[in-house]
Amino acid sequence: MESKGNLNPLKLSIFILISFEALVLSKGRILLSKKPDPSDAAATARWLASQNSWGVLSTISNDLGGAPFGNVVSFSDGIPDQGRGIPFFYLTTLDPTARNALEDERCSFAISEFPLGTCGRIDPENPTCAKLTLTGKLKLVDSKSTEAKFAEQALFSKHAEMKDWPKDHNFQIFKLAIEDIFLIDWFGGPKPLTLEQYLSPKM
Amino acid sequence: MESKGNLNPLKLSIFILISFEALVLSKGRILLSKKPDPSDAAATARWLASQNSWGVLSTISNDLGGAPFGNVVSFSDGIPDQGRGIPFFYLTTLDPTARNALEDERCSFAISEFPLGTCGRIDPENPTCAKLTLTGKLKLVDSKSTEAKFAEQALFSKHAEMKDWPKDHNFQIFKLAIEDIFLIDWFGGPKPLTLEQYLSPKM
Repeated sequence: MESKGNLNPLKLSIFILISFEALVLSKGRILLSKKPDPSDAAATARWLASQNSWGVLSTISNDLGGAPFGNVVSFSDGIPDQGRGIPFFYLTTLDPTARNALEDERCSFAISEFPLGTCGRIDPENPTCAKLTLTGKLKLVDSKSTEAKFAEQALFSKHAEMKDWPKDHNFQIFKLAIEDIFLIDWFGGPKPLTLEQYLSPKM
Repeated sequence: MESKGNLNPLKLSIFILISFEALVLSKGRILLSKKPDPSDAAATARWLASQNSWGVLSTISNDLGGAPFGNVVSFSDGIPDQGRGIPFFYLTTLDPTARNALEDERCSFAISEFPLGTCGRIDPENPTCAKLTLTGKLKLVDSKSTEAKFAEQALFSKHAEMKDWPKDHNFQIFKLAIEDIFLIDWFGGPKPLTLEQYLSPKM
């Protein structure tokens, strides 16, 4: 006779499956690797870039009196868990961000650990909930280059629907040529992190 | 005799409770109201401002050659579900964003529907996953004003840990004096939305 207190294996499996699905659905994707130790700035920054799927890309808006214009966009730095740290974007000039960048390349891209779900109940502005801002130039990638092929794979592997976006919108690949890195992942202010260290982290 | 195919009420309750908890934990908070119809631009924009707890605040960085500098920050537009649409921030000049704003007030603040979990499997850059950018001036709020009292309630009710942040960091309340609203919540480009419409939506 089955004890009232036990879930049988079938019910338990269904429960685990549904809970897992709820978690995946609510976050949109699952984490492929564990958060590095905050003392390792380069690894933490690269982890943020590799695990996030979207962020805010800011450009200078001449239409808005030279104000900074932040825009929510998707990005990818490589196929899942094989990122190289450089964010690629799929943008159309129907959108102000691409138009702004073609007039003035200065930009920054900001991402947060918060939407990954690993900050727990900590506030998104608490310094232990990591955040990364990459500042530099937003550059159109030559569609015939090897880089464009890599970027397309990087983008489409993480954003499956992009390849079906309307052809007449003329989406093009842009990349952030990074010049400065701002990382907060613990108390005590931004972590010193050079571009060289960021591009070659010891993972 | 209990049928093998049924969960008894106790097991069902535990399952629902745990699934709900998983959902709350993964998103950090629960939604207090349903997403408005995309045809109602003002209500959708206000819903985004009221349901989100963080976004990216962009300022002009003189330290970075006048580049736009986006920074992940917490915000609040009012106590839960009673927002007024104007984002308040709790910032310290130990952080570049507040320093930038005191030199040049031009700023924008971008938030997305994606972290709320209501976009489902739709890509964060898909226009049906709503996004809002408020552009204007970032202004220090007089700490002795009635507005500061409202803002403090607004911030601390959504970000409980803020009131215990280190006093010697000298956190101050800033607000975004909105001048332009950029909302995408469906196909067909940004929705026309005036500040007046945004501040007095028919909810």
